[in-house]
Amino acid sequence: MKVDIKPIGFFYTDTEKIPRHWTVSDASGVICLEKEYTKAARDIKVGQNIIVIFIFDKSRGFTKDDLLQTPLHKNKKMGVFSICSPVRPNPIGMSVLNVFAINGNKISVNGIDMLNGTPIIDIKPHIKDKYDCPSCSETMETK
Amino acid sequence: MKVDIKPIGFFYTDTEKIPRHWTVSDASGVICLEKEYTKAARDIKVGQNIIVIFIFDKSRGFTKDDLLQTPLHKNKKMGVFSICSPVRPNPIGMSVLNVFAINGNKISVNGIDMLNGTPIIDIKPHIKDKYDCPSCSETMETK
Repeated sequence: MKVDIKPIGFFYTDTEKIPRHWTVSDASGVICLEKEYTKAARDIKVGQNIIVIFIFDKSRGFTKDDLLQTPLHKNKKMGVFSICSPVRPNPIGMSVLNVFAINGNKISVNGIDMLNGTPIIDIKPHIKDKYDCPSCSETMETK
Repeated sequence: MKVDIKPIGFFYTDTEKIPRHWTVSDASGVICLEKEYTKAARDIKVGQNIIVIFIFDKSRGFTKDDLLQTPLHKNKKMGVFSICSPVRPNPIGMSVLNVFAINGNKISVNGIDMLNGTPIIDIKPHIKDKYDCPSCSETMETK
């Protein structure tokens, strides 16, 4: 099985030292959507958190030696499904970013941990519980 | 640009009515990892929440008519990047699930919203802030 994934846009930043994780980042950058997707971003609001899914396109290929990896500043090996390493069976990353400006197809975000030029493959609303869900209603909640 | 994505395993459930979103689900199922990835799951613990990334393999193809969609039980169209629809530019889904049992390559999870047979492409730790991060240390936090 192969899935044909294509970027919806690319991420750009002039930050020189990219923070290792969005939870410890106050760096910023811009997601430039392909023009054809601008309309799909019209309900993203300034101030909102969004989930950004991207490709670790600079990561080397995954081998069975990477099933366990020693995370930065940890002293023991851990299974790759319990850590945030960019070297993964599928090179997919996920960050929760804060939107601070929107200008057409350009979404400015803070809290970034992606390299300059990173291909973006999806944006989703950041939903923590049922009350965050845009399609929630009392009807659904009592379902 | 095409990315070669392959399943790390598949999800199985006998739940007949799949809840529409993990935030409103108390249904359960099992992630069966391909045997080659069993070791990569060894640090996943019972009781833990995990992020599961999967393919909406039953979704029809995305067209420009899907840039705006009317979510279930909403009365207005919204941009696809602000809703959880399975019809997306890239058919990638993400759920936060709770692990209630682990048996070798089988991870039993609660809160599921995936269809029986769904291909799983990544599992990540559920990190909400820097204190959840397995590789966090004081050294990193003051970086």
